[in-house]
Amino acid sequence: MFFLSFLAPCIFSFFLGLRKRKKKGGLVVCLVGVVNKAEIWKLRQYKAKAKCFDIEAGKFIVVLNEDEAHENDLYVSDRIVISKGSVQSNALVDLSNDLVQRGEVGFFSEVSSKLKVNPGDVVEVRHTDRPASVDYIRKKIDGKYMEPAEIKCIISDLLDNTLSEVELSAWITAMHIRDLSSEEVVSLTNAIVDSGSSLNLGRHPIADKHCAGGVANNRTSMVIVPILAAAGLYIPKTSSRAITSASGTADTMEVLANVEFHVDEMREIVLKTKGCLVWGGGINLAPADDKMIRIRRSMHLDPRGLLMASILAKKKSVGAEFIAIDLPVGRGSKMEDMRGARLLAKEFLEIGAKLGMKIECFITDGSDPIGNGVGPGLECIDVLQVLQGTGPVDLMDKSCQLSGALLELAGKVEKGAGYEVALSLIKSGKAYNKMREIIEAQGGNANVRIDDIPVGKFRHEVVAEQDGRVENVNNKMISHIARAAGAPKDKGAGVILHCEHGDKVKKGDVLFEIISENDAKLSFALKALAAWPVVELQKVILGKVSQE
Amino acid sequence: MFFLSFLAPCIFSFFLGLRKRKKKGGLVVCLVGVVNKAEIWKLRQYKAKAKCFDIEAGKFIVVLNEDEAHENDLYVSDRIVISKGSVQSNALVDLSNDLVQRGEVGFFSEVSSKLKVNPGDVVEVRHTDRPASVDYIRKKIDGKYMEPAEIKCIISDLLDNTLSEVELSAWITAMHIRDLSSEEVVSLTNAIVDSGSSLNLGRHPIADKHCAGGVANNRTSMVIVPILAAAGLYIPKTSSRAITSASGTADTMEVLANVEFHVDEMREIVLKTKGCLVWGGGINLAPADDKMIRIRRSMHLDPRGLLMASILAKKKSVGAEFIAIDLPVGRGSKMEDMRGARLLAKEFLEIGAKLGMKIECFITDGSDPIGNGVGPGLECIDVLQVLQGTGPVDLMDKSCQLSGALLELAGKVEKGAGYEVALSLIKSGKAYNKMREIIEAQGGNANVRIDDIPVGKFRHEVVAEQDGRVENVNNKMISHIARAAGAPKDKGAGVILHCEHGDKVKKGDVLFEIISENDAKLSFALKALAAWPVVELQKVILGKVSQE
Repeated sequence: MFFLSFLAPCIFSFFLGLRKRKKKGGLVVCLVGVVNKAEIWKLRQYKAKAKCFDIEAGKFIVVLNEDEAHENDLYVSDRIVISKGSVQSNALVDLSNDLVQRGEVGFFSEVSSKLKVNPGDVVEVRHTDRPASVDYIRKKIDGKYMEPAEIKCIISDLLDNTLSEVELSAWITAMHIRDLSSEEVVSLTNAIVDSGSSLNLGRHPIADKHCAGGVANNRTSMVIVPILAAAGLYIPKTSSRAITSASGTADTMEVLANVEFHVDEMREIVLKTKGCLVWGGGINLAPADDKMIRIRRSMHLDPRGLLMASILAKKKSVGAEFIAIDLPVGRGSKMEDMRGARLLAKEFLEIGAKLGMKIECFITDGSDPIGNGVGPGLECIDVLQVLQGTGPVDLMDKSCQLSGALLELAGKVEKGAGYEVALSLIKSGKAYNKMREIIEAQGGNANVRIDDIPVGKFRHEVVAEQDGRVENVNNKMISHIARAAGAPKDKGAGVILHCEHGDKVKKGDVLFEIISENDAKLSFALKALAAWPVVELQKVILGKVSQE
Repeated sequence: MFFLSFLAPCIFSFFLGLRKRKKKGGLVVCLVGVVNKAEIWKLRQYKAKAKCFDIEAGKFIVVLNEDEAHENDLYVSDRIVISKGSVQSNALVDLSNDLVQRGEVGFFSEVSSKLKVNPGDVVEVRHTDRPASVDYIRKKIDGKYMEPAEIKCIISDLLDNTLSEVELSAWITAMHIRDLSSEEVVSLTNAIVDSGSSLNLGRHPIADKHCAGGVANNRTSMVIVPILAAAGLYIPKTSSRAITSASGTADTMEVLANVEFHVDEMREIVLKTKGCLVWGGGINLAPADDKMIRIRRSMHLDPRGLLMASILAKKKSVGAEFIAIDLPVGRGSKMEDMRGARLLAKEFLEIGAKLGMKIECFITDGSDPIGNGVGPGLECIDVLQVLQGTGPVDLMDKSCQLSGALLELAGKVEKGAGYEVALSLIKSGKAYNKMREIIEAQGGNANVRIDDIPVGKFRHEVVAEQDGRVENVNNKMISHIARAAGAPKDKGAGVILHCEHGDKVKKGDVLFEIISENDAKLSFALKALAAWPVVELQKVILGKVSQE
C-alpha cells in the first residue's frame, strides 16, 4: 500500500534496463517477446457510454466506474486517452461507483466539448503514459537541472491541461525550494514566450518598463510611454488590471481610451504613434503565466526564477530591447529589504544579457504612495497634470528618471543627459501631445480635459485626531479603502492623499479624502476605515520625564 | 500581478508588528482603531441563493459568480465560510460567470450535504483566514522544523477537507525534498494515530509485523499470526487488499473467512483467539494516509518520513509493542539496494524507540517470489500446506524466522531459540489449530480442506523454449499475468511457479502455469504474456570463441 507509487517507474525502468543489456552483451534472453507499452495498453482498453455533467470541472478529468476501472488496472489520477471515433483527448481518471455505473463514463464540459460527446455516445477508454513533463518536474524535485526542451515540454503540457494541479503544485514548490539556475530562467522565459502570441513590430529601438508593484498610484507608465514615444523610441506597453489593488494601469488608462486590443490592432497603434497603453490580458502574450496563478496564490509561493521568467517573457514577446525595471523596496511594498532587491536586480541583468535584452534596474522607495490620487479617475488627473507640467512632483520626477535612463540605454542621448531630455519633452508639451495621439489611436477623446475626468461627488475628509508626524502611509490600506469606495469598477472612486511620510500635522488637518460615486459605497468605505489603519502618526513629543 | 500571492501575509504580519510595537513603547499611534480581521470580513459578507450540482467535486469547493466575487474581494482558491442558518462549512472558492449568475452560489455534493442545502436556499458567504496549517506547510517548504502541534493541525485539516490538493501536494513535495527529522516522524505518527480509531486490547504482550511489499505471494502474515497466537502473544493483524498486485493478504485470507470488521468486532476476535487477519481498510485505523495516496501516486513521491509514519501509525493504533519489519531488497522489489534498506532500518529502530515500540528490521531477499502460488486461492493452498508442515520451504522458513524473532523480542523465549520454537509450533499442529480457531472466529469454516480451496479449471503451461539457467523471475510481471487471468477478484485465478532463480532448465520444461476461472480471461492472460516477460533465461553457454 505504502509503496504504491513506486510501481510504475520500477516496471518501466526495468524494461529499459533489459533492452540495454540485450544490446550490449546479448546474454540475457527474454522468454517472451520484447515489451511494447502501447500493445499492453491495447489489451486494457474498453468501450463505454457517455454520461454528461453539464458543468466545468476546471480540469481535464473523466469519471470511471470504480469497479470497472480497477478491473482494467485503472486508478485515481491515472492518465487515459479517451476517444470518440477519430477524435481523442487526454484525461485524468476520477472514480465513483455512485456517479457512473458499469459501462458508463462521466464527462465534464472540458472533455465533452473537446470530443463533441453527447449523452449515450460510445467512447473508448485506454491507458496512456504519464507525460514526460512529469519526469521533468521530478528532476527539479530531485534538485537536477531542467534542459531547455524539458522546460518547453512542461509549459506546453501545462497549456494543454495535460498536467494536473497536484503536479503543477509540486513543480512550483520544487522551484521555490531548489531555485532555478540562470540558464533555466532563460529556458523558462523562452518557453513562455513561445507559448503565446508575439508582437513583431519590425521597427527599432523598442523599449519597455516593468514595475514590481505594490505602490499605490505608481502610474509612471502613463508618463513614460508618451515621453519615450515623443523621443522616437517604440514602447508597446502592456499593463495589468487591478486584482487586489485600487487600480491597475490598464484600469486607469481605460478612463481615457480603450485598452482591449488584439495583437495586430496593438501593432497598428504602435506603428502609428510609437507607443501604446493596453491591457496585457487581452493580448495573450504569456498565457502560461495565468495558469500558474491559482497555485501560487494558494500557497503564497513565488519562486524567484518563475517570477523573473514571467516578467521577462512579457517583455520579450513584444520585442523589447531596452528595459527599465522598477523594484520598490520598503515597508508595505513587495520587497522589504535592499539586499534582496540588489540580488534580484543583478540576476535580472545577467538573464537579460543572455536573452539579448539590455536591462537597468532601479531600486526605488516603495514605502510611500506616488502621486496624490488613488483610483482610476484620480490617477488620470495626476498623470494629465504631470504631462501638462504641473501635478505631483514625485510622479514627475520618477517618470523622468526612468525615461531618461531608457533614453541613455537605447543610445538616444548622451550618458547623464537623459533626465533633462525627458523633462524638456514634458515642458515643451511634446509628451502631452504624444499622449493625445495615443489616446486617439486607442479610440479615446484626444481633447479630453482634466475637468472631464469622472470624480465621485460623495466625499469624506479624514483629519488628524492629534498633533504629530506622519510615520507611515500604508499602500495596502489605501488600496483597501479605495476599493471599498468603489474603485476600480467605479472610475470616479478612490482616495486623495493630503499628507506624506514625514509631514508634521496639527490636530484637525486633513490627512486624506475618500471619494465615492454613491452614498452606500462611501458608508461602506467608512466602515472599512474603522478596521484599516491608513495613516500612522508619531507623536512629536515622544515621552515626558518629570519628577515623581 | 506577479506578486499577488505576497499580499495577504504582508498585510497581516504588518498588523502583528504594529500591535507589538504599541505594547512596547507606546510611541506609534494608529490613527484609526486596532484591526480585527473578523470585523473586516464581516463587511464583505453577502447572501446568495443556492444552485446545486448533484455531483461530487472531490473537494470542499463552492462556485461563486466571478464578477460578484471580485467586487467582494474574493478570488480563486480563497477560503470562505459558507453558512445556512446556524450550520456552516469551510470551502474553497472557484469562480465562473457561466455556471452561476449574480446572487447565486453553486454547490457540489460535499458542501451541500454538509449544510443540508436545497436549491434556492439562502446562504451567506464570508471571507475567512487561510488555516494555520498552510503556514505550517510553508515552514516545511522553507526547511524549518514542524512542531508536534503544527503537524497535528495539518493532519486534522487534511481530514476535514480544509486543505486543498494544491496545498497537500506542496507539503508532500516539501517533505520529500527537505526530509523529516526523527522528531517530526514521531509527531506525524502520533498525529495519524490520533486521527483514527484505536484498538484498546487491554492485554499484553502485543506483537505485529509489517512487510514493505513488492514480493509476489509473500503471505508470511498468515503463517506468523497463528504461530504467535499459539505461543501466547496477541497479534491483531490488519492487512491491505491488492491495489496493483495479484492479491493482498486481506484478499487471500478472504478465501477462508470474512475480513471486514469494525474495530470492536476485531477486538472481540483477538480477545478470543489472540490473533486475527482482517482488512485494514475496514477499521479506519489511519485514515489520514488514504487521503494522501492520490497525491503521492500522481507524483510518484514517497517521502521517507511520511512512509515510516504511515507504517508505524498503523502498528501503534493497534497497541503493538513488538514489531518485525520485513524490508525486501533486490531487483524488482521496492528497495533496490542494501544501503538504502540499512538506513531505513536504522531509522525505524530509532523512531520506534521514541514511540515506545520495540522494533526489529529484516532485510530480506526480495528478488524472487516466496511460495509457489500467486493469487488468492493458490496462496491459501501454500499457507495451509505450510501450517500442516509441508508446502513451500521458503515460505515456511521466512515465517519461522520472523515469528522466532518476535518471540525473542517479546521475551517469550531465550535469545536464539525463537526459530526452533516457531517451527515446533508448526510441527506439533498447534499453529494449524490456532489458524482454524481464527478462521472460525472470523466466520469461516474451521474444517476447510485444501481441496475446498477454489482453483480455476482453465490452465496454460509456459515452457522453456531453450536450455538455460533462470536469471530472474519477475515479481511485477507475475502480478500482471495473474491479474490478467482474473486475480484477485476471481479467487481461483493466478499463477503457479515451477522454477526459481538459479534453476537449470531444459527446453520444454514447465516454467510456470497460468490458472483462470474462465476461457476468456485465460486468453487475455496469454495475450498479456506476449507483452510481459515473466521469466528470463540465461544461456548456459554464454559465448563461443572460435577461429575466425
